[in-house]
Amino acid sequence: MSGLTGLGRVSIVGAGQIGTMIGQALTGADQRWGVLEVGLQDRDPAIAAEALALGGGDRVLVGMDQVLVADVIILAIPVTGIVEWIETWGSRVPPGSLLIDTGSSKGAVVAAMARTVPAGAAAVGGHPICGSEANGPAAARQEALRNAPFVLTPVREDGPALTLATRLVQSLGARPVTMAAAVHDRIVARSSHLPHVVAGTLARLCRDSGLVDPSTVALLGPGFRGATRLAESDPEMVASFLVANATQVAAAVADLSAELSRLAEALSLGQGSVAEILRDGAAARRDLLGASQ
Amino acid sequence: MSGLTGLGRVSIVGAGQIGTMIGQALTGADQRWGVLEVGLQDRDPAIAAEALALGGGDRVLVGMDQVLVADVIILAIPVTGIVEWIETWGSRVPPGSLLIDTGSSKGAVVAAMARTVPAGAAAVGGHPICGSEANGPAAARQEALRNAPFVLTPVREDGPALTLATRLVQSLGARPVTMAAAVHDRIVARSSHLPHVVAGTLARLCRDSGLVDPSTVALLGPGFRGATRLAESDPEMVASFLVANATQVAAAVADLSAELSRLAEALSLGQGSVAEILRDGAAARRDLLGASQ
Repeated sequence: MSGLTGLGRVSIVGAGQIGTMIGQALTGADQRWGVLEVGLQDRDPAIAAEALALGGGDRVLVGMDQVLVADVIILAIPVTGIVEWIETWGSRVPPGSLLIDTGSSKGAVVAAMARTVPAGAAAVGGHPICGSEANGPAAARQEALRNAPFVLTPVREDGPALTLATRLVQSLGARPVTMAAAVHDRIVARSSHLPHVVAGTLARLCRDSGLVDPSTVALLGPGFRGATRLAESDPEMVASFLVANATQVAAAVADLSAELSRLAEALSLGQGSVAEILRDGAAARRDLLGASQ
Repeated sequence: MSGLTGLGRVSIVGAGQIGTMIGQALTGADQRWGVLEVGLQDRDPAIAAEALALGGGDRVLVGMDQVLVADVIILAIPVTGIVEWIETWGSRVPPGSLLIDTGSSKGAVVAAMARTVPAGAAAVGGHPICGSEANGPAAARQEALRNAPFVLTPVREDGPALTLATRLVQSLGARPVTMAAAVHDRIVARSSHLPHVVAGTLARLCRDSGLVDPSTVALLGPGFRGATRLAESDPEMVASFLVANATQVAAAVADLSAELSRLAEALSLGQGSVAEILRDGAAARRDLLGASQ
């Protein structure tokens, strides 16, 4: 590739919400980033065509031979698909080119990259924190990348790879945040994967109570709607990152159940005990989100 | 009171988000509803004054003797406070007047009303489904009542009481939905009370993981923010409705833990099993919310 003179040719594998969003940002990126061409590949040609029509790229790529002729290859498919892709094609990433992904679980991705990508090529795990529960190219909002954290998880001791990945993230208008894959996975198990698990479970419990019919459905207010919103996420994508991060997710589920039992016990101790736990929950949220702003 | 000729004088006990919102709607209600005056009482005079300044009423009431001189008395305080109020003052609701509340748990409220409110007065449990996690008079948005479901739970076989409560709800621009208190409480335990419990617990788990520091806090994205939003609700108010609905909430917590375990087990069965559960969660949400629109 053209090294520090520009990002060059970019191939994006997967033209869903995130792939399209990244393609839009790259096709509109300032000249100084040196993006020469953005190619889009999707196993569903109709999706690739839709993403192209939405400004997600310059042309549709057909087959991995076309994808692999690139300076930057971005994998924007569900995590298990990312790992399979790397195992199948990782050894063919060209010398000097960058392979990066956008999956929400990083341990398995980084391990696959370390195993297969040649030492002469650059490989970095990536996770942009900007998706919504909506699916497909039409859900892409390029502005969601603006200042969004984009986690980079190093694969090897490889300064140039991280420099290249950082420039890619900056060209998208996002904010690079580097951390170890294992740390990333332990946190998102609790901050993102667990909330995804809970959202659908709350919806199922409510339906399966058998109590909600046309005369009582009015009780489902804005609280329920917000608490279950993540259940609208693509089930294959979510199942993929849950399974890829299974150990941490299972631990988070166990922690949640234990804490819920504690609160259920407090119900019999009276309002003061319950309020104390709730106040601590509000304080925790403010500690965390206050610190993120 | 003036019976079918108008709602007459209204007293609102509690000038928080809901009390202020109702006061705003009543002071601005069409003349045909016959609202003569809206009085606001709050144990914190500064809150009552703030609500008054926001158009939540015509004057501030001091002490329950003033509150009880009314054709309609609306209790807009936390549920345990509502029950205490009814036990203390319910016997003094004037003949022909209506006592109604706005609490999120109805069984204890309706039982207290049945015990204390004289047969000559009207008493109905109420629950407007329109609050947000924000607190205080400044959080009141009168338009949130527009077409919002306002549950009415009968206290006795008393047609005129329900007719009067229905007219009050209509004067607010809300939509009356009548159901038994026990049915209401079983549903909201799952649709509202459980999500409140979960929101703060998710925030605590994330903080207590000890993994989130300034270098990793960027991982808390829009999903975490949305999933924990209900933790911002007033802890005393939430503790109050949880304790008042303790049996149902504890059952809902147990159901949630069981379902979460089932999903954790599916993690080891592979992506297909997990995706199936997630798809069912999305279908449940759509079944429920589709039916509510």
